[in-house]
Amino acid sequence: MSATNAGSATPLLAALSVSPLARSLQRELRSRWPSTSDRVREMSRYALLAPGKALRPLLLVASADAVGGSRDGVLPAAMAVEYLHVATLVHDDVIDDDEFRRGQRSVHARYGTADAIVTGDFLILTVFTALAECADRGVPPADVLEAVRVLAGAGADVCRGQAKEAELTSDPATALADYEAMIALKTGALFRGVCRAGALLGGAAPEPAAALTRFAEHLGLAFQMYDDLLPYLWDSGSTGKPDTSDTENLRPTFPVLLGYQAAGRRDRERFARALSGRMPAQEAYALVRELLEATGALDRGRARAEAEAARAKEQLAGLPGSEGVELLTVVADLSTDRDR
Amino acid sequence: MSATNAGSATPLLAALSVSPLARSLQRELRSRWPSTSDRVREMSRYALLAPGKALRPLLLVASADAVGGSRDGVLPAAMAVEYLHVATLVHDDVIDDDEFRRGQRSVHARYGTADAIVTGDFLILTVFTALAECADRGVPPADVLEAVRVLAGAGADVCRGQAKEAELTSDPATALADYEAMIALKTGALFRGVCRAGALLGGAAPEPAAALTRFAEHLGLAFQMYDDLLPYLWDSGSTGKPDTSDTENLRPTFPVLLGYQAAGRRDRERFARALSGRMPAQEAYALVRELLEATGALDRGRARAEAEAARAKEQLAGLPGSEGVELLTVVADLSTDRDR
Repeated sequence: MSATNAGSATPLLAALSVSPLARSLQRELRSRWPSTSDRVREMSRYALLAPGKALRPLLLVASADAVGGSRDGVLPAAMAVEYLHVATLVHDDVIDDDEFRRGQRSVHARYGTADAIVTGDFLILTVFTALAECADRGVPPADVLEAVRVLAGAGADVCRGQAKEAELTSDPATALADYEAMIALKTGALFRGVCRAGALLGGAAPEPAAALTRFAEHLGLAFQMYDDLLPYLWDSGSTGKPDTSDTENLRPTFPVLLGYQAAGRRDRERFARALSGRMPAQEAYALVRELLEATGALDRGRARAEAEAARAKEQLAGLPGSEGVELLTVVADLSTDRDR
Repeated sequence: MSATNAGSATPLLAALSVSPLARSLQRELRSRWPSTSDRVREMSRYALLAPGKALRPLLLVASADAVGGSRDGVLPAAMAVEYLHVATLVHDDVIDDDEFRRGQRSVHARYGTADAIVTGDFLILTVFTALAECADRGVPPADVLEAVRVLAGAGADVCRGQAKEAELTSDPATALADYEAMIALKTGALFRGVCRAGALLGGAAPEPAAALTRFAEHLGLAFQMYDDLLPYLWDSGSTGKPDTSDTENLRPTFPVLLGYQAAGRRDRERFARALSGRMPAQEAYALVRELLEATGALDRGRARAEAEAARAKEQLAGLPGSEGVELLTVVADLSTDRDR
């Protein structure tokens, strides 16, 4: 933890790990991925069972519950969304050449690029095998097919976001609107797809499904904005990946854009230098951190993320499933109050 | 074309391009992928519209027709299987660092590795969006879900085959049984999935669906065996990728394994040298070609592929849809009589 924040955040991971639902989802994941001699399944297991928050499975089950649906019926879909999320992480780490993820070596660092590509593909395909299983648990096939569409579409949007992110690389003068459009795809689309699929599989009528979709859109923004702040609020011992990853990959992230907007000419030049790729990684990171503190970007970023989380919670009023609603509320609260 | 085979093969591509069904599938593909400013769709378009055989879409529609199903109902699924196939090609080219595919630069050579990974992911996801569309065309949702399972499972098997292929690299003493197990996954699984999905979406009873599945298994073997022979039968002007690709990637392909089995000690050492990665690409390729001719491996390989094609055709007896059966017969015949 960094000096400026020591002890001030509720760790989301710890909070989720005491939730009985989150624990049962973790158990289900482990029981579905036993150790095996099948190479691709073993690599998938390595990626899936790394200590993670299993946040998306929780959101899916909570969304189904919030509209009065069956938790048991949607359990395979809860697994499916974790596969989709982890697949994007595995491929992202190849693209960014990141060596660590969730506190362990990334799949491509451990097994090589070829196997990491194949593992991600395998996980994406397994999303749909798992989704189809919901029909064996009493969810009407037509509803399962709708969830197939929603999650395939969400995954496709994530791909669009990844391509857009590459276009924004190394330009700190990126408009905040372009950045928000990018993260709405790269991160937001999956949150949106997860909550919407959970609602549909839970048998939601159109209005509650739309409310949960809006909830997820705001939550996704809050989540990604705060995620971008993490390397400057906490050290890599808690986030599980190097602090320098974003600056090394020349990413104009949320706090950088806020800082750049607020900066004078001299500081703008320093931002540009830090993201030019011509400065040693640690030095670039330290410079960005200094600039963010000087411009007040961290405080403003946190306030903006908290506002999105508050708007997310407003969408939950009037949903029937009280336990699901409570869980979604906790997730929204913790989205901007965590160390990883 | 090489001197040894000049003019002797019926080009599968030409034969398919005069088939009205194949032409309508090509038209459908083009109309679904117009030029666009959406980067990921544009890269997908580039990969999908390269001159190809669209063989898998044809097999899917012919399989549905062979069991008396509706062609129009399965059209989106026909597109879906081409997306899945092309996705595996795009990622394979990243893994093998192949620069050409279907007579044009590969996606990763043209757009870079990061975008090629994202494009492949996008195509895999779009498989399921397209499949779900069949429900809008009168196919019962439960049958569409079965097709989702079949194609997700087939794609997962392709991934297993890719991982296995990497394990066999550079070992010409690989057992033929290991090679066949690998291609049954890497190539066979998709043929199998395509024909089975076509049958299920066409409303097939269990026995006709099983017959088409067996047809596809033999066809897949014939197809991949002959594919492995192609670099030694025809030049790269017709196959669309460099002759030297397999030897450069140290692949112990079907003819190499046959040749190695039949070779004496001295020739075995020469095979091992050619696949050691220590010889210039053109020289290694020429040496393998010489060894294959000396050991009679090309003739034996062709005979074995033709036997698989014949067994494929045997499975078609008694299926009701005469036009579909006729098309499947033509494809089986041409699988071992083509130049690309």
